[in-house]
Amino acid sequence: MNYKNLVQQIKKKQSFLCVGLDTAPEKLPEHLQEMPDALFRFNKAIIDATHDLAVAYKPNTAFYEALGLAGWQALEETILYIKSKYPEMFVIADAKRGDIGNTSERYAKAFFEQLPCDAITVAPYMGSDSVQPFLNFKEKWVILLALTSNKGSADFQFTGGGKKLFEQVLETSKQWGDEKQMMYVVGATQAEMFTTIRKYVPNHFLLVPGVGAQGGSLSEVAKHGMTKDCGLLVNASRSIIYASNGRDFAEKARAEAQKLQQEMAELLAND
Amino acid sequence: MNYKNLVQQIKKKQSFLCVGLDTAPEKLPEHLQEMPDALFRFNKAIIDATHDLAVAYKPNTAFYEALGLAGWQALEETILYIKSKYPEMFVIADAKRGDIGNTSERYAKAFFEQLPCDAITVAPYMGSDSVQPFLNFKEKWVILLALTSNKGSADFQFTGGGKKLFEQVLETSKQWGDEKQMMYVVGATQAEMFTTIRKYVPNHFLLVPGVGAQGGSLSEVAKHGMTKDCGLLVNASRSIIYASNGRDFAEKARAEAQKLQQEMAELLAND
Repeated sequence: MNYKNLVQQIKKKQSFLCVGLDTAPEKLPEHLQEMPDALFRFNKAIIDATHDLAVAYKPNTAFYEALGLAGWQALEETILYIKSKYPEMFVIADAKRGDIGNTSERYAKAFFEQLPCDAITVAPYMGSDSVQPFLNFKEKWVILLALTSNKGSADFQFTGGGKKLFEQVLETSKQWGDEKQMMYVVGATQAEMFTTIRKYVPNHFLLVPGVGAQGGSLSEVAKHGMTKDCGLLVNASRSIIYASNGRDFAEKARAEAQKLQQEMAELLAND
Repeated sequence: MNYKNLVQQIKKKQSFLCVGLDTAPEKLPEHLQEMPDALFRFNKAIIDATHDLAVAYKPNTAFYEALGLAGWQALEETILYIKSKYPEMFVIADAKRGDIGNTSERYAKAFFEQLPCDAITVAPYMGSDSVQPFLNFKEKWVILLALTSNKGSADFQFTGGGKKLFEQVLETSKQWGDEKQMMYVVGATQAEMFTTIRKYVPNHFLLVPGVGAQGGSLSEVAKHGMTKDCGLLVNASRSIIYASNGRDFAEKARAEAQKLQQEMAELLAND
């Protein structure tokens, strides 16, 4: 999906919500747990219940890999389902990959050719040639880790002399691809840093985890991070998909997604 | 596998060779290409031909994920084959994972529970809580990226004020786990840096890619990086597994592995 289409979807749906599909078998509603394709069934119900309120889905590969072959199959089925039924959705493989060039090329094939993802999250540690192979795919996106939402982000992302590592990452990597191909992960738990981030990347989209279960504030993120084209994809995972663990899980997920969408519509109107 | 067993294997086999299973379908010998389980057949033949010369195997997950479900199956089959037939081998999932705590925990399950790997490579960018879940598994290892073998390593790994980022990574992360649980990736192409690395981690094992196709020197690595317990796992992938693309591929792979093993035996004797 290209930049223009993404912005159009956001305006049309009045939403910049990304639903994180961090689907764990032990958290599924009881009536689904015994079913052989429980994970996919659950995801399908969540997707059907929220597709008009969200612009993006973000399955995190870890949750699927933890189940071996059956998990990888559920990941494939989920992504293929989204793209066949709701082709306007932006699909992010939250995979945090990155390796030497000839190997990153394989990861790009895995998520952009074998699977029809629009974007993949990538870790910056290995530098330009670990990212470039993903950028060689037209209308596909790299979402580079900049400032993550976890406590450990303090260990290295804030190190450095004049410039912190996350600032170096922003400054260097924005030469690899422009805002039509690159986004950055910036945690909502770091809302006070959005002003600094926007000095480096005034127009890039930011993928913002950490609203919901991790405690970040949507209005703070919008206040300091929004651009004229919105420039934000705010992710919520657990607070939406596990809103209920009963038979009403999809309905309750929709209600949670709707709360966020309504708040987003107001923030888009005020901007 | 624990530290003691690993050192014993190295001494017994007079080898610190790790064979990288970066298996790509288009590089397989022609007679295997049409077979449905070509990747696993190829890996099995390579493993059978080299197991007495190597102490470790390192499948890189990217090569398998690029083939979707069938690839993930070949990865599983390969790892299970190694551990069932040659339980003394140290198996490294070269996956370069790392995410927030509850997600890294899933990756740990994927590679340490679903699959019987001994170690996984992890990217340090997200800090301590992205690494800790892997260390909670007994006799399982984290191999943290420190100084990688690719050109892009210069982009961020050498940034910083007084201390470079890779030095910060070594200094900070060695508090997370000792040499019985952690190793570091240090590229052979950075041989001049091994002396600096050893100042920070005098006793940790280093996993060293970049000998062979990437041009690093085994003797230089040993000169500056070896410890009293060897402290090195030197990886070669393409130079071994693609030594021939004919019906003699396994035999030729063995010959290449043997050259390296013989050189390693001399380096161990001289130490």
